Amino acid sequence: MNKELIFRLSKYKRLLLKFKALGLEKVFSNNLGDAIHVTPALVRKDFSLMNIVGNKRGGYTIDDLLVRLDEELGKEPNKEVVLIGCGRIGSALMQYKGFTRDGIKIVAGFDADPRLINRDADIPIYDIAELQDFTSKRSIKVGIISVPDNAAAHVLELMIDAGIYGILNFAPVELKCNRKYDKNNQVLRCNIQNVNIGMEIENLFYMVNIAEAGRLPAEET
Amino acid sequence: MNKELIFRLSKYKRLLLKFKALGLEKVFSNNLGDAIHVTPALVRKDFSLMNIVGNKRGGYTIDDLLVRLDEELGKEPNKEVVLIGCGRIGSALMQYKGFTRDGIKIVAGFDADPRLINRDADIPIYDIAELQDFTSKRSIKVGIISVPDNAAAHVLELMIDAGIYGILNFAPVELKCNRKYDKNNQVLRCNIQNVNIGMEIENLFYMVNIAEAGRLPAEET
Repeated sequence: MNKELIFRLSKYKRLLLKFKALGLEKVFSNNLGDAIHVTPALVRKDFSLMNIVGNKRGGYTIDDLLVRLDEELGKEPNKEVVLIGCGRIGSALMQYKGFTRDGIKIVAGFDADPRLINRDADIPIYDIAELQDFTSKRSIKVGIISVPDNAAAHVLELMIDAGIYGILNFAPVELKCNRKYDKNNQVLRCNIQNVNIGMEIENLFYMVNIAEAGRLPAEET
Repeated sequence: MNKELIFRLSKYKRLLLKFKALGLEKVFSNNLGDAIHVTPALVRKDFSLMNIVGNKRGGYTIDDLLVRLDEELGKEPNKEVVLIGCGRIGSALMQYKGFTRDGIKIVAGFDADPRLINRDADIPIYDIAELQDFTSKRSIKVGIISVPDNAAAHVLELMIDAGIYGILNFAPVELKCNRKYDKNNQVLRCNIQNVNIGMEIENLFYMVNIAEAGRLPAEET
């Protein structure tokens, strides 16, 4: 499976759970396609790769799709994550209300600055030196980086050594995983999502420019 | 132009500026394709749509590309943005160091909570009721939403009425522009980028699941 496919499957799952909550039992490829902005043909292709076939008149059974999607994506584990870099962005994320609804929990923060350490806080903040010990005890594999750009590459190495293979990067620098093996000489399968806030805003300026020049065919999202 | 094309052009531009800073004068479609993970054929197609032709042996002249990209994307204006919702995430963004390098400046914050108003701060915080007056005086067309989910839809309407047509949404709810016309009955061309932090993290859990099941063909980003 490639990343794009995984992200589409994840979107199908979110949507199907919403449809189900609304009382629906069946769904058509064009419903799903419309909602995530892909062609119905691609939806059908994705599902047929998972050996799911629909019925032209009746569509797909939502429950069947959800069972198969869980098999493909893996059951949702307890979504515990750690956060490295407890400065402004980091501490804002630690308080972020949006996570609760998705069942995501930041269980600890880590920082190199001794003044930020606070073992007794609701979400405790530990010294970065304690990261590996913590993640291996708690089997944590996903983490957020919110450190300054000059610290990001080093922190990425520490996270990988601590067994964190899914990384959301808010540091204002594009991170890439250049290592082929982990510290036990196993093939390293690391995934980094970069949230480049500056680039997002720059793109919006271009979109506004182009819309004002009359070259944008209306809202497409 | 569609959104995907605009985003690719924006990426080419960022890269070309970096190449130029390194002293390069020429670039090949496969260099650009490798860097942004698309095929060289797509790079050539994008450029030929802009009536730029390369030379099989010599590649493309970086300066020529940059001139044409500026014509297509519009010159970069002074990148002034406003931010609505000065809570934790909002105030963290107001201090975000990553913007400076991209020339982006948050010139004011707005909030409905009178306790947060601070007209004398480095980045002043005004009452949300002053938004329209401020944006029209300063010709501001791009803004960030970082309000709680239940306020987001209403704030979006206020922003559109204030002439903000490029919107970066950090509220934990997916926003979509449902209006066809602005308050002057002009066709509304609005662009919203949703940064769904919860979904990003959820996707990372799936990636880790799938990698651990040995079904991921190694890092692809």
